[in-house]
Amino acid sequence: MTSTIKPLCKEIQIALQKKIDFKTKPLGSLGLLETIAIKIGSIQNTLTPKIIEPTIVVFAGDHGITKTKGVSPYPQEVTQQMVFNFLNGGAAINVFCKQNNINLKIVDAGVNADFDQNNDLISLKIAKGTKDFSLGKAMTTAQCNLALEKGKEIVNTLFHKNCNTIGFGEMGIGNTSSAALLMSYFTSINIENCVGKGTGLDDKGLQQKKTILKEVYEKHIKNIDSPTEALATFGGFEIVMMAGAILEAAALKMTILIDGFIVTSALLAANAIDKNVLDYCIFTHSSGEQGHQKILDYLNVKPVLNLGLRLGEGTGAAIALPIIESATLFLNEMATFESANISEA
Amino acid sequence: MTSTIKPLCKEIQIALQKKIDFKTKPLGSLGLLETIAIKIGSIQNTLTPKIIEPTIVVFAGDHGITKTKGVSPYPQEVTQQMVFNFLNGGAAINVFCKQNNINLKIVDAGVNADFDQNNDLISLKIAKGTKDFSLGKAMTTAQCNLALEKGKEIVNTLFHKNCNTIGFGEMGIGNTSSAALLMSYFTSINIENCVGKGTGLDDKGLQQKKTILKEVYEKHIKNIDSPTEALATFGGFEIVMMAGAILEAAALKMTILIDGFIVTSALLAANAIDKNVLDYCIFTHSSGEQGHQKILDYLNVKPVLNLGLRLGEGTGAAIALPIIESATLFLNEMATFESANISEA
Repeated sequence: MTSTIKPLCKEIQIALQKKIDFKTKPLGSLGLLETIAIKIGSIQNTLTPKIIEPTIVVFAGDHGITKTKGVSPYPQEVTQQMVFNFLNGGAAINVFCKQNNINLKIVDAGVNADFDQNNDLISLKIAKGTKDFSLGKAMTTAQCNLALEKGKEIVNTLFHKNCNTIGFGEMGIGNTSSAALLMSYFTSINIENCVGKGTGLDDKGLQQKKTILKEVYEKHIKNIDSPTEALATFGGFEIVMMAGAILEAAALKMTILIDGFIVTSALLAANAIDKNVLDYCIFTHSSGEQGHQKILDYLNVKPVLNLGLRLGEGTGAAIALPIIESATLFLNEMATFESANISEA
Repeated sequence: MTSTIKPLCKEIQIALQKKIDFKTKPLGSLGLLETIAIKIGSIQNTLTPKIIEPTIVVFAGDHGITKTKGVSPYPQEVTQQMVFNFLNGGAAINVFCKQNNINLKIVDAGVNADFDQNNDLISLKIAKGTKDFSLGKAMTTAQCNLALEKGKEIVNTLFHKNCNTIGFGEMGIGNTSSAALLMSYFTSINIENCVGKGTGLDDKGLQQKKTILKEVYEKHIKNIDSPTEALATFGGFEIVMMAGAILEAAALKMTILIDGFIVTSALLAANAIDKNVLDYCIFTHSSGEQGHQKILDYLNVKPVLNLGLRLGEGTGAAIALPIIESATLFLNEMATFESANISEA
């Protein structure tokens, strides 16, 4: 997969900093909000950035590993049940998107169920769940490439509907296992240090998950020679599709809201394909899933929130959005020392 | 000053936890949002809490110390200039309150200027600034008691206008000095470890501020025998009025949004008068002012945000409000495993 993401322009960053420093407040006193304002202004290449039609896309997919091995306390069927919950408006992500005026789309990237047509559902099923990666690759290379392309298409469609800010979320019983394997591959952190409790394994379950995933990692690692092959081996249709979507959003100069552990594992793949993607990302929170903060440290990025969330669905991105909007609003609306006739330090 | 704040009821907390655990999400996966939901539900003594007419009150006052000693890079006049900025809608707190549908009131607790009547201004000036506490007490005991009472009155009025959630903010050149002295008195942390750079002192300025405040602390400490006398000696009319306001808000079972270093110093005084006040407080952020996190540690509380803000004005409370609302909304609106027909772990 090729990518053409342009790095951000340094000059606009300097101009944005200057604009911020004339605002009626001590220098630097809005902390991370100032960093976010400069990032979004740079992405949009303007001194007056605006968040338009913010949208969260939740990618759902099933995982073969959950049918044969014990890596999650929940049965695979919960993925499809939660998709119905999303479509019926009953999940946490529905509540937070409604609260913060965020558009919400659900993508069937590979759920092991059939869904009726629905305005909020984008049906792009690659297959009814991946294969069990303890036996072979999770998907074929062709399926992986198709998922990457479909992810790009989704973002392209949203972009042409005027959306300039996109958050990613996911649902897929078993997908912390995929994410841990991808994390280990892309960060070189030992697989056992990437594995966490997911939706709520106990200590014994966690140990079992570590043992299973260590075997999986060792079985496949010698055959992986590219980011795409890592995705094909360890993904997650929902993860692969997100990786494609993230790359396209950056290529289109959209602001990307990264959610928790699984979304960040997709970003690691995108980052391996094109490092410029990071310029377009805001890390909305540090998850309670133990591997997540380690990825944020690896990427050397500071998250907006640290609330111990570990739900996925894009919930961290959804509740961080008002703070990200605060950053654009102070930049656009605050008075300057001169306009307010205030003495400077 | 007496206070009659009732501790929160344990039974409703258990019932709230049970309600949360039936929601369609892994147990505990909404992290701090769950803690906040339980707190607000307990304060309102209901399983369906709501935030009504949220209001931020910004208390402004001047400080005698700024006229005679170098503790701030800004001149005293900036306090009144910023009050005009608040009334004209140009400050950061205006932007964030407008964004998040928060009512905003400015209180002249003791600014060294005269203001015309204004719908957003509550005029309760105790005096045109405090006395320089390097020479004597900042205010008389009578002024201190009056400020406490006026703070209570403001909250009472808001309560009778249906407001159930109140955030506190402040403006007062020099008030990090007052706050540091109060912090040292109430926490027993050495004064030099309580002093920070405020609006932006350089290292030399910080050293000078430490030297001045150490002398002030040592001059007065032997004469202070009560929380009220600590407030009278080291306050800040705006700080004293906030302490009274905080106590009244808790007595009226309102949810209290604590902002940064100065507001938290007022809370320390309120807490010394009645420890039950803490039950009603949400700590909205950890400030970039160096003493603030130390107070939060002393109180053993976890803030919602940690964005390096150090602006005051209630800005941390204002931008945290949507997240606090997210907590009440998931509690009220999310489906349960049963209603959504989802398999449990």
